[in-house]
Amino acid sequence: MTTADTADFGLLSPATAGTAASRLTSDSQFIQAMLDVELEWVRVLADAGHAGAGVPAAVEAAARAGLYDAADLAVRAQGGGNPLIPLLADLRANLRASAAPEAAAAAAAVHKGATSQDIVDSALFVMARRTVEVIGTDLRAAAAALARLADEHRGTVTVARTLTQHSLPSTFGLKAANWLDGVGRAGMRLEEAAAALPLQWGGAAGTMAALTTLTGAAPDRGAPLELAARLAARLGLADPVAPWQTNRLPVTALAAALADVLAAAGKVANDVLLLSRPEIGELSEPRAAGRGVSSAMPQKQNPVLSVLIRSAALAAPGHLAQVQAAAAGAVDERPDGSWHVEWQALRQLLRLAGGAAAKLAELAGGLAVHRDRMAANLALTGPLLVSEKIMAAAAPLLDGAEPGAGKAKVQALVNESLATGAPLGELLRAAVPKEELSDARLADLLEPANYTGQADELISRITSHYQEWSRP
Amino acid sequence: MTTADTADFGLLSPATAGTAASRLTSDSQFIQAMLDVELEWVRVLADAGHAGAGVPAAVEAAARAGLYDAADLAVRAQGGGNPLIPLLADLRANLRASAAPEAAAAAAAVHKGATSQDIVDSALFVMARRTVEVIGTDLRAAAAALARLADEHRGTVTVARTLTQHSLPSTFGLKAANWLDGVGRAGMRLEEAAAALPLQWGGAAGTMAALTTLTGAAPDRGAPLELAARLAARLGLADPVAPWQTNRLPVTALAAALADVLAAAGKVANDVLLLSRPEIGELSEPRAAGRGVSSAMPQKQNPVLSVLIRSAALAAPGHLAQVQAAAAGAVDERPDGSWHVEWQALRQLLRLAGGAAAKLAELAGGLAVHRDRMAANLALTGPLLVSEKIMAAAAPLLDGAEPGAGKAKVQALVNESLATGAPLGELLRAAVPKEELSDARLADLLEPANYTGQADELISRITSHYQEWSRP
Amino acid sequence: MTTADTADFGLLSPATAGTAASRLTSDSQFIQAMLDVELEWVRVLADAGHAGAGVPAAVEAAARAGLYDAADLAVRAQGGGNPLIPLLADLRANLRASAAPEAAAAAAAVHKGATSQDIVDSALFVMARRTVEVIGTDLRAAAAALARLADEHRGTVTVARTLTQHSLPSTFGLKAANWLDGVGRAGMRLEEAAAALPLQWGGAAGTMAALTTLTGAAPDRGAPLELAARLAARLGLADPVAPWQTNRLPVTALAAALADVLAAAGKVANDVLLLSRPEIGELSEPRAAGRGVSSAMPQKQNPVLSVLIRSAALAAPGHLAQVQAAAAGAVDERPDGSWHVEWQALRQLLRLAGGAAAKLAELAGGLAVHRDRMAANLALTGPLLVSEKIMAAAAPLLDGAEPGAGKAKVQALVNESLATGAPLGELLRAAVPKEELSDARLADLLEPANYTGQADELISRITSHYQEWSRP
Amino acid sequence: MTTADTADFGLLSPATAGTAASRLTSDSQFIQAMLDVELEWVRVLADAGHAGAGVPAAVEAAARAGLYDAADLAVRAQGGGNPLIPLLADLRANLRASAAPEAAAAAAAVHKGATSQDIVDSALFVMARRTVEVIGTDLRAAAAALARLADEHRGTVTVARTLTQHSLPSTFGLKAANWLDGVGRAGMRLEEAAAALPLQWGGAAGTMAALTTLTGAAPDRGAPLELAARLAARLGLADPVAPWQTNRLPVTALAAALADVLAAAGKVANDVLLLSRPEIGELSEPRAAGRGVSSAMPQKQNPVLSVLIRSAALAAPGHLAQVQAAAAGAVDERPDGSWHVEWQALRQLLRLAGGAAAKLAELAGGLAVHRDRMAANLALTGPLLVSEKIMAAAAPLLDGAEPGAGKAKVQALVNESLATGAPLGELLRAAVPKEELSDARLADLLEPANYTGQADELISRITSHYQEWSRP
Repeated sequence: MTTADTADFGLLSPATAGTAASRLTSDSQFIQAMLDVELEWVRVLADAGHAGAGVPAAVEAAARAGLYDAADLAVRAQGGGNPLIPLLADLRANLRASAAPEAAAAAAAVHKGATSQDIVDSALFVMARRTVEVIGTDLRAAAAALARLADEHRGTVTVARTLTQHSLPSTFGLKAANWLDGVGRAGMRLEEAAAALPLQWGGAAGTMAALTTLTGAAPDRGAPLELAARLAARLGLADPVAPWQTNRLPVTALAAALADVLAAAGKVANDVLLLSRPEIGELSEPRAAGRGVSSAMPQKQNPVLSVLIRSAALAAPGHLAQVQAAAAGAVDERPDGSWHVEWQALRQLLRLAGGAAAKLAELAGGLAVHRDRMAANLALTGPLLVSEKIMAAAAPLLDGAEPGAGKAKVQALVNESLATGAPLGELLRAAVPKEELSDARLADLLEPANYTGQADELISRITSHYQEWSRP
Repeated sequence: MTTADTADFGLLSPATAGTAASRLTSDSQFIQAMLDVELEWVRVLADAGHAGAGVPAAVEAAARAGLYDAADLAVRAQGGGNPLIPLLADLRANLRASAAPEAAAAAAAVHKGATSQDIVDSALFVMARRTVEVIGTDLRAAAAALARLADEHRGTVTVARTLTQHSLPSTFGLKAANWLDGVGRAGMRLEEAAAALPLQWGGAAGTMAALTTLTGAAPDRGAPLELAARLAARLGLADPVAPWQTNRLPVTALAAALADVLAAAGKVANDVLLLSRPEIGELSEPRAAGRGVSSAMPQKQNPVLSVLIRSAALAAPGHLAQVQAAAAGAVDERPDGSWHVEWQALRQLLRLAGGAAAKLAELAGGLAVHRDRMAANLALTGPLLVSEKIMAAAAPLLDGAEPGAGKAKVQALVNESLATGAPLGELLRAAVPKEELSDARLADLLEPANYTGQADELISRITSHYQEWSRP
Repeated sequence: MTTADTADFGLLSPATAGTAASRLTSDSQFIQAMLDVELEWVRVLADAGHAGAGVPAAVEAAARAGLYDAADLAVRAQGGGNPLIPLLADLRANLRASAAPEAAAAAAAVHKGATSQDIVDSALFVMARRTVEVIGTDLRAAAAALARLADEHRGTVTVARTLTQHSLPSTFGLKAANWLDGVGRAGMRLEEAAAALPLQWGGAAGTMAALTTLTGAAPDRGAPLELAARLAARLGLADPVAPWQTNRLPVTALAAALADVLAAAGKVANDVLLLSRPEIGELSEPRAAGRGVSSAMPQKQNPVLSVLIRSAALAAPGHLAQVQAAAAGAVDERPDGSWHVEWQALRQLLRLAGGAAAKLAELAGGLAVHRDRMAANLALTGPLLVSEKIMAAAAPLLDGAEPGAGKAKVQALVNESLATGAPLGELLRAAVPKEELSDARLADLLEPANYTGQADELISRITSHYQEWSRP
Repeated sequence: MTTADTADFGLLSPATAGTAASRLTSDSQFIQAMLDVELEWVRVLADAGHAGAGVPAAVEAAARAGLYDAADLAVRAQGGGNPLIPLLADLRANLRASAAPEAAAAAAAVHKGATSQDIVDSALFVMARRTVEVIGTDLRAAAAALARLADEHRGTVTVARTLTQHSLPSTFGLKAANWLDGVGRAGMRLEEAAAALPLQWGGAAGTMAALTTLTGAAPDRGAPLELAARLAARLGLADPVAPWQTNRLPVTALAAALADVLAAAGKVANDVLLLSRPEIGELSEPRAAGRGVSSAMPQKQNPVLSVLIRSAALAAPGHLAQVQAAAAGAVDERPDGSWHVEWQALRQLLRLAGGAAAKLAELAGGLAVHRDRMAANLALTGPLLVSEKIMAAAAPLLDGAEPGAGKAKVQALVNESLATGAPLGELLRAAVPKEELSDARLADLLEPANYTGQADELISRITSHYQEWSRP
């Protein structure tokens, strides 16, 4: 059996396979993140005089993921219940076997004062921070494309749909702006969450006891919390109030932010999937060679980008629930199982968000908008679409002696139009004298494009709100 | 069949029954919140000259939940799929039947320019904001009590447990401080989330079309977005960038914050449940008449507060997943089902968080700490508990000619102690000459209380971080 | 504050409000179920000579839910963590206050040998069994209606859609039969699950110790397990291998079966929601007075039955996850919180399934099928819809010298038709000589109705498979 | 970048890494399962005369997973949204490039009449069936070991715990039997579910249209449904009533059964984790080289098997919720995203159940039971543990003139014993005359071992119930 025989490359998760986010969260990259934490820590120690000056160089040479066998580490991680334990053993063995000066000292210095949870938690966040960077880039690109669509389609009147039915006229520009509102909000929140990811550094029991022993002999070389702060800075992580070994809210915050990115992307995909149905035909996905083809049906073009984004969005709630249940079930100074269940769920959320963001950028950047079909669908309901407005305008004219009676009369006309297909405009014309409602005013009333309310203003508000953030 | 025959009072949810949060989220209170939104809106309209000056008073008289039959409204809500539609019909009927001046005008003015989603979404957030206030009060009380415990038990040495086993000495003060860190963080985040809850005000399609028609005739009386901003201010809600009918991230943000409160409270409960087991006995819940009794076993005292908090925490992930799935599945300008599934899930999260917070305040305020049992449990592992420290201190003394060899020798002594029960101190005494390790230094090494690291400093950091927030 | 001020009637859950399933699972009905268990138990005891002959009558008089205050019990349930404890106290008080003969003896006999979990678990299942009966009735009605639709529409050709796009011709009869396949399967599984719901009867620790003491003195009066079997029979519950206090698989099995009913109903609703969109228009929901109306838009008719069914289906996964997490987290002989979280989740699943089943029966019974729109939508893609078949038939005719080359040529014709709108039939006619493909054969090839495969046979298989089960 | 740089080997999921179940569900094995379905199908076709006799051999030679690049296929699966499309292209290319006789015919015959969903769904179930076999073997081994423990410890009295507190005496044998009851029930249900996994075979729209065309010309060569039945038999899958493309209950049934296995295993792990805490010490996990070690603390032995089982159990609800949500959200004849989200969730459940079952077999087979600690913990509560029994026996003796008064008197003695530590036996001795309660009878009453009820009988019932199933 070769390595590839036991590996996963995302074959059962086409929403994430082959994306930058998946590469940045591979087993190999997680090994690298753990090694990075160990390396930065010996740098902190060396800077403070707690490790020899040559130690960091020795560790650096050994801190390359390519030197370690991920498949073997995965199997051995069962022994102690986490992947750091076998990696640390191999790292130390590599150092001891090295001919580098201070290699033996490095073997002794590495991981000093730390516990495996310090490394695993911090490495997960280092990996998350790196992945969020590429997710953020894709989300900004998607947002910029959505802002362009919103602006370009300020005048593209389309039907708004509520509970599946035609409700009122709107514009496609506003629809795109609303997509932007979701994507931008989720993207900004994700980047805030990523910037707040804290270092974990507490030692075996969260007391920094071993580190206190280490520094106690030389208090001038930096107190434990000061050394931890330096490590956080080196790793690009936030410096927390205290170690958070069993306070898992930093994990749930990241998971929730990723789930929100998926929800925002999912909303766009859901709409595109609906609006690119043959009977509706208002939108088409950008085409690309080999995408959307069907093996059996030569004529078929599937909206695969949206299908995959939607599938990613549907996977998020379950993963989020896992992370939340883990936080709710924590006990002791390191929980007996609920800690371990977070890792894979968090990685999956990073990958799903990464896959969705990449596909969304492509989708938003190349979406084809079919104005003719929007107009045709709008015409399906026709003037009935503005019956809310007609009700407001015409009912008072039909009140006669009895205030409020006009409303029932307009409703009767609407019902007649629905039942017989008679144009509502003609029925109104017959019911209301011209002197009370001129032909011009009636035509104006019946025009959907005249009843889009604040659509234009809302587009401006939304696009300007996210303009700075989405600038590449 | 009487009303009570079909009602729920929380009989199957003892974690929430009878709490302030449950009362504030009853059907009756939700009706009140919907009426409050309708009332404040006619006030905005009247202030702007879009409704008669007497309209608000007429609506106010009719806007009392007690006038409406919740059970009947619940059944009729099936007709249109939401509870506002039958309530609005009844409200208008009440107004039309009223003898108040401008009552007929009020019937016409009420709900003007709004859609049912505007009222339901905004009322849910009004209800949430009110409920979060009492949750926040309970969380602050819990936080203050935890801070007192942390401070009082700075010197109470106890064992830290990781993966169920004894790891290192710590202090109970630090355990309480860590609880505070979780509760405080979650509480602050919840209050931020509650302060950001936005008004929903977009009309039938999110374009504010009807409102635009209304104000269009008199542009000096306030543009639609200006009127919405005034309504938001009156309701204590935030004024959003735009209507967010299908961008459900405000809902997920609230749900996630509530779930985090439950996770933080759950962590405390999990620890109390463990530490009040008879074999451990380090903590006891506060007693109260009728609480914790068993119908069958006269001697039994159950830690019911913690059981109920934990049960609430375990319910949160499923509700959060519902809300997140609803957001991920949204489509159109109002989704066909995923909107409707949010309401009950959000209410349950408010109730669960409210129940947990109330019980946590009582638990934290009355927790009995048994120092003797902490000391006794610490003594179970004895000096082995500080073997990490001994390893660091003694191994170099036993290296002999071979650097690093001392580590294996100390491990052998530890193993011998574990296997035979021979005190580790005696074994060490025999292995290391007094001139290298004095009796006093050895005794110091073996004392758990001397190996609590930064526990004291961490308590100070945590308690001062939340001090201002938790002030009542 | 009146009782109604703190109660829920389902206002925020219109999918369930006012249904028989909701009434059968109200607080009051759960109280009745607990009383029923206590009453049947004293009957078993009396029959076996362990209680006086007059005891059952005395208990029966007191075992009416109407005598107890559900709201008060809900609040007091917090004391011991479950609702049986205060109910039992009130039941005994009622008995002691009663003038009935043997009332005092009844107060002493009631609950003898039982623990509160015995009553709560068994009462939940009694309540579940009763509720599943009405759910089953609705599911059978829905199934019968779907079978009629399937049979009636064997010849109604419609387009099958995959990944939102037109794939091949099918029949509406087969679509209805597939709905039946889901609903029937879920309904049968639910009834099997309900029939297997076991009694819980183990006493305080699952050992039947108190009951053993009771019967030990008179072994001829029935061994403990024999008495439990008699109780199971009286309650209509299954007699389990052993008490299952912390083996919660009977609960997860019921929850999973209910979730499957919701998934099967949700599938129908999802399709109806899609197919009743104005642009598609193949189906319409049955109309009813006051249903589907919009407060703002007079012309609008919302598919509310389907919206509510779908909302119920979307709520199921979160509740199922709660129940599953509770089972996975069980510990001890009665878990400290994960037991308690099951109750409300199970009740919600019963209600959601009940609401969905009732609405599905109405939906299936009155669904309007628009053959003309099905034909029109089919014509949208036209002969391209059978391009799979054309490819199979025509490609060999175009191979020429090179086997396989015909496939590319047909694909080119398809592409040309897609790009230019030229009818595929005409392109084929031009490409293939009549002697190889007669006009009649070509027309036959192009006819969608001739390419519905086994649709008819599958309808027969499915309808006959569920025929007996769905018979009222 | 090498292949290993982008692969996962389970590094973040130590509960599953390196197990047989993980190998059987690798990307490579899923490729093999898809190839197996394609191969068996050409065998069915050839047997029926629809493909040349040499076709199966040609396909067989190409149907080895090792010939395909999983990483590349995973990336290309994004094009059409599923992994079969690129695999089929490569398979056909391999066949066309082959020098085997009938290789070109094989390239044409392969996948004939099928759609990608047919292959993916059926292959998932083939993979599931294979994996369930090894899971079942491990579960039977675990069950047999638990039955041995139950039998061996019929007389090992231990304390039963409810809501964390001591409730009554029980036996460790009954605890083990209860574990067996859960594991056996879940194992039997899983194997039933696996045996019922149906073939998916419906063609592009679930109508078997292409297959009907194929067989139509030669009806004597087997009708489409007959050919499908033959394929099902060859693959070891069940023959369904009809294709179930959007009726996903076969998937939810498998997922629920796997989640139940995890819940049953989790229950055992939860108990072991609790009972192996140092303060309780009633159980120890089997030791193995390199397992349970801590990098920092030389004395520590972590119960890693149970930690990993528990972590697997905690992951299940989220995955199950994903699968259930996918079923509830299905639409059309192939859903646009909810189909795709099932694959990874199902694979994870197979792996988690496989990892948990393997570890459970090892845990149950080597669990160390510490009778002395069970006795010591029992003695902690002492005779108070049987106060239920004492209440029943002694209260009538203390009634005096007033029936029922004795109960309060016994409760007062219990309270006095709890408060002062005075032995309950002595208090009783002083309160009840010897002529009413002899010393011998009192001693008998106070002996926990005499109050284990039906523990022995229940052990026998449970072990005999699962005996045949668990036989290897």
